Amino acid sequence: MTAGSGESQILDAWHANAQAWERAVRSGQIESRRLVTDQAIIDAVLSQAPRTAIDLGCGEGWLARALAKAGVQVTGIDAIPALVDAAQAQGGGTFQVMSYADVSGGALQERADVVICNFSLLGESSVHALLVAVPGLLKADGALVVQTLHPLATGVEPYRDGWREGSWIGCGDGFGEPAPWYFRTLGSWVAAFEAAGLQLKRMIEPLHPHTERPASVIFMAGLRAGS
Amino acid sequence: MTAGSGESQILDAWHANAQAWERAVRSGQIESRRLVTDQAIIDAVLSQAPRTAIDLGCGEGWLARALAKAGVQVTGIDAIPALVDAAQAQGGGTFQVMSYADVSGGALQERADVVICNFSLLGESSVHALLVAVPGLLKADGALVVQTLHPLATGVEPYRDGWREGSWIGCGDGFGEPAPWYFRTLGSWVAAFEAAGLQLKRMIEPLHPHTERPASVIFMAGLRAGS
Repeated sequence: MTAGSGESQILDAWHANAQAWERAVRSGQIESRRLVTDQAIIDAVLSQAPRTAIDLGCGEGWLARALAKAGVQVTGIDAIPALVDAAQAQGGGTFQVMSYADVSGGALQERADVVICNFSLLGESSVHALLVAVPGLLKADGALVVQTLHPLATGVEPYRDGWREGSWIGCGDGFGEPAPWYFRTLGSWVAAFEAAGLQLKRMIEPLHPHTERPASVIFMAGLRAGS
Repeated sequence: MTAGSGESQILDAWHANAQAWERAVRSGQIESRRLVTDQAIIDAVLSQAPRTAIDLGCGEGWLARALAKAGVQVTGIDAIPALVDAAQAQGGGTFQVMSYADVSGGALQERADVVICNFSLLGESSVHALLVAVPGLLKADGALVVQTLHPLATGVEPYRDGWREGSWIGCGDGFGEPAPWYFRTLGSWVAAFEAAGLQLKRMIEPLHPHTERPASVIFMAGLRAGS
């Protein structure tokens, strides 16, 4: 797979599966989200006591709504119009159709206390370009909060960066072709933040209550002094 | 186990097993060291192009000798006199008997380009106290380089901080009672560096050639701006 084809397949798959995804999230289909990772990202974001947040790859907007209930003013961004429509219909934030390429290009002209990427960093070059744009979206003492698959707890092999086949297993019915995704080792995530002028401050590993292994990893990074 | 008893058992076990350890290291008994982690720590340290290094928990001095060959001036510190004697007999650096409590208390009055802890952070409170002292041992653009067991790749369960039973399995013959050691999750290591005023910059996960899983993790941290 060429890098460019992986990136475009990700967008194609989300366009095609937006409706099934909206249904899966709203019905709590995905067990690890219901049991662990939904609350984990909410807790991580609220630990920053933010007034404002930007949710990059907000999907159908559940996290924006949860944060709005806690008094946070959220801007949600997603490349998939059907998901943004679904988010707007429920309210809880301001939602805009915008691709990561748009954000990297400077289309989002605001700064927030927290920038969130909740299981929404799926590509290779698109992710690096987006991370480089994050310092420009953060207030001076703001934080980036990224939740993603835990590279080691997933058992994905080999333990080397690269594109992997995706799957909708565990998401319920109604899904079509899955998208590939780009696997990064923990070391590569740390390097990616460093390369973007961000400094890793915390790494949270929420445990799955059944396996007692990390269900995900949450990276919290701030602006590097001088960057 | 009380925290204090774990710390003293670690020192007792190294006193009792110093000779067996010296033999194990010099004969290349420990496969993961021979195949992966010895070269990994040398490469990580040399990537900083240091002129000077402090090796905390230097043992019988193999790393100091390897770095001396690359032109690095090394001060080796270890709490076990028999290991320091063995290191001094081979040369390659300046070696001193000093406990981590001594170092935490300010007994080591020098600064280096790199401070190294190679599989030598085994305790709980002793490690926190030592890490807090590290900024005082580093030159302004210096780096702490810590190699340790990879918390997730070891398969140690549960994945929670705590004391664990030790073992000399894989080290060869002649060993007596093993010492307990304090397990930290990856998130807890990151938090420990942060609490000590250190900023994690790189995380290296050297792969074992047989398993293609990380044989260890190497953390590289610098001084946090303003600390």
